[in-house]
Amino acid sequence: MIDRTYTGDVTPEMDGETVAIAGHVHELRDLGGLVFVIVRDREGLLQAVFKEDREPALFEDAEDLGAEDVVRIEGEVTESGQAPGGVELVPESLELIDEADAPLPLEISKDVEADLSTRLDNRGIDLRQPEVKAIFTLKSVLMDAMEDWFEREGFVDVDTPLISKGGAEGGAELFPVVYYEEEAFLSQSPQLYKQILMASGFDKIYETGTAFRAEDFATSRHVSEIAMFDVELAYIEDHDDVMDVQEESLRYALEQVAEHAEHELDELGVDLTVPDEDFPRITFDEALDILEDEFGHFPDDPTDLDTKGEKLLGEYFEEQGHPAFFVVGYPDEKFYYMQNVEGDDIASRKFDLIYKGQELSSGGQRQHDVDAMREMMQAEGVDESNFEFYLDALSYGTPPHGGYGLGIDRLVQQVCDLDNIKEAILFPRDPNRLAP
Amino acid sequence: MIDRTYTGDVTPEMDGETVAIAGHVHELRDLGGLVFVIVRDREGLLQAVFKEDREPALFEDAEDLGAEDVVRIEGEVTESGQAPGGVELVPESLELIDEADAPLPLEISKDVEADLSTRLDNRGIDLRQPEVKAIFTLKSVLMDAMEDWFEREGFVDVDTPLISKGGAEGGAELFPVVYYEEEAFLSQSPQLYKQILMASGFDKIYETGTAFRAEDFATSRHVSEIAMFDVELAYIEDHDDVMDVQEESLRYALEQVAEHAEHELDELGVDLTVPDEDFPRITFDEALDILEDEFGHFPDDPTDLDTKGEKLLGEYFEEQGHPAFFVVGYPDEKFYYMQNVEGDDIASRKFDLIYKGQELSSGGQRQHDVDAMREMMQAEGVDESNFEFYLDALSYGTPPHGGYGLGIDRLVQQVCDLDNIKEAILFPRDPNRLAP
Repeated sequence: MIDRTYTGDVTPEMDGETVAIAGHVHELRDLGGLVFVIVRDREGLLQAVFKEDREPALFEDAEDLGAEDVVRIEGEVTESGQAPGGVELVPESLELIDEADAPLPLEISKDVEADLSTRLDNRGIDLRQPEVKAIFTLKSVLMDAMEDWFEREGFVDVDTPLISKGGAEGGAELFPVVYYEEEAFLSQSPQLYKQILMASGFDKIYETGTAFRAEDFATSRHVSEIAMFDVELAYIEDHDDVMDVQEESLRYALEQVAEHAEHELDELGVDLTVPDEDFPRITFDEALDILEDEFGHFPDDPTDLDTKGEKLLGEYFEEQGHPAFFVVGYPDEKFYYMQNVEGDDIASRKFDLIYKGQELSSGGQRQHDVDAMREMMQAEGVDESNFEFYLDALSYGTPPHGGYGLGIDRLVQQVCDLDNIKEAILFPRDPNRLAP
Repeated sequence: MIDRTYTGDVTPEMDGETVAIAGHVHELRDLGGLVFVIVRDREGLLQAVFKEDREPALFEDAEDLGAEDVVRIEGEVTESGQAPGGVELVPESLELIDEADAPLPLEISKDVEADLSTRLDNRGIDLRQPEVKAIFTLKSVLMDAMEDWFEREGFVDVDTPLISKGGAEGGAELFPVVYYEEEAFLSQSPQLYKQILMASGFDKIYETGTAFRAEDFATSRHVSEIAMFDVELAYIEDHDDVMDVQEESLRYALEQVAEHAEHELDELGVDLTVPDEDFPRITFDEALDILEDEFGHFPDDPTDLDTKGEKLLGEYFEEQGHPAFFVVGYPDEKFYYMQNVEGDDIASRKFDLIYKGQELSSGGQRQHDVDAMREMMQAEGVDESNFEFYLDALSYGTPPHGGYGLGIDRLVQQVCDLDNIKEAILFPRDPNRLAP
């Protein structure tokens, strides 16, 4: 490796030591006889001060630098009250590692706010901004923590296929794939495979995967390619066991973010509240009552919460110290794979998690009685023949089970207070965006 | 959760205690007046002994059970020299949780070896076999260990898109996707995105992702949907830095498997050797010399190692205590994204990792000089316009970098000594298999 110290590790205590830093030229300030070169690496910024009368040869090289050039600067660490971070380098050598083209398609060091579309068109440049990069460092901390929790709890990390013959929830929102001579589709959800694995005795699993939705949307919370964190567990009593897992894992992941992504939260200006109390679990009817009583709000569709309803409920619970809560039991959502309390006319064991006013995931106890599923499919007009592989696998003894799929990008959007979910994705995909 | 103890946690020391176990009925032995019910859960097997004269009501229920029924049995732990594991249950209650259809499409408890195709057709049943499940528990331990290593070393966990306009290595082996009104393709490799992230200053990244290859193959080491572990790091001196990362992370992951998947290795009958010494790094020419001198073998294509050549080299190094080694520098593989030593006529900074006689990954130092890449593309007849998003992102200052993509399924195949890579994938995809 090229010998260097991260800027974040260069502290005033190192005054007098010689170190090398390497990174992009974030900013150049030429004051005549004096050039400040501010170097950016993944940890932050550090300035090197080139003086014409002190190091004339180096000074000339520094004057020739351009924004975003990749450089390595060796120098003496010097405490400095004026310098950002309280420290700067007195250069001893300067190496130009890679020269950047000019001009940049997007400003990086200036506080010029480009619109999101322009930023995404030039995402490679946009990602160089410390406050943009911070989103993805935080996302990495969050994902690692989430996986650590499930690993520790004995869940098996699995991979289910992304190309299949059909989808869990029908055909309209599926992307078709030309699969050799056959027509196939991209996976919308690993739901059916997760359930087969429960029947196979895998007991507790999680998957970090991708879901594809061919919806034609134009909202700030939808994309076509979604990072999913899927969970399924067997031998549950009911959906409360599933909510327990989601609650504990999310709390742990947020704790880890608060502890290990402090710098990133600062960069993003986010004051993260880790929910230390139990997440409230309210029924759909209770949710409607709160909306009516507290806000006089009635969702247009009385069988589902609308975006505004979720937001208002979010405010209501946030005020009581609960950034996250569950809504349990939705009317008119009787899917064949949902478990319902007998005789109940709602999907009584289905739940949604709402975090900071936005739905992050759906889950519930699944139906494991194949006969009941076949009846439901016939009633719903679902073509059973597309699901034989699934029904068949579940017919040879399946323990009661449930699970959920958590949208990782939406979670990051909410944690980081981002206006648009695309900001939480390195290279997002939507109906109009297939590149970069 | 349903109250139960895993069979693996029921030990002879618990003699006299009452526990409940839950799982599938692995085997039933009705000896007249005596029924052995062997219950299987994710940890193993445990038998409950039902005696007609001791518990007549329970005995009747036990006689009615069928293979693969899901049951919960509560009973007294009793030491028993004859029982597998030295312990059995004297039942106090028996609950039938879910009844299995009969007959099974595939035998589970019997030692009947079905052919792989039949097994994969009934994968949900096949995965119930302890020695099949062991592969995936081991795979999970391996993946978790691998991710832990990179997390600890400060690599950022990233996600790059799976649907894109073009591919890294051309169009013939790409799966087309109907993307709204446009034609798009499934990702063959995250290579270009990983490099853009290096230009963006992400410094060190890893990705657990999926690669799709529309090749029309029929070998025991190819599939259409591949689990990949991709790595990229910047500020390298050369490809040796990349090999160091791969070597250390693989050694760590194998150590963890040896330590935490002992039971699974036993189940699979695998004696895992963790390479404790440095992996040998030989040039392609040295590889040819060894094949010629030691085995009289000449690959048909003198610019690449053939399957037999890899296998022979594997044996050669294994005998010297090296299950893994690198082959560095391949002729006729001058891709535009490969870094070469100036004037060299081979891809001198490219390397392959061979583990137990099979290539697991390719990697190398990448080209970060955009002008050199454009020249190379023109020479190779590659349409630059498909790559503008990539060339553009790299043109604004890119540090020297390199990386590799490791095929996780192949690694598991090699670790577990499996004949076919499909055995290492829960629901594999090939030109003839799109379900389950």
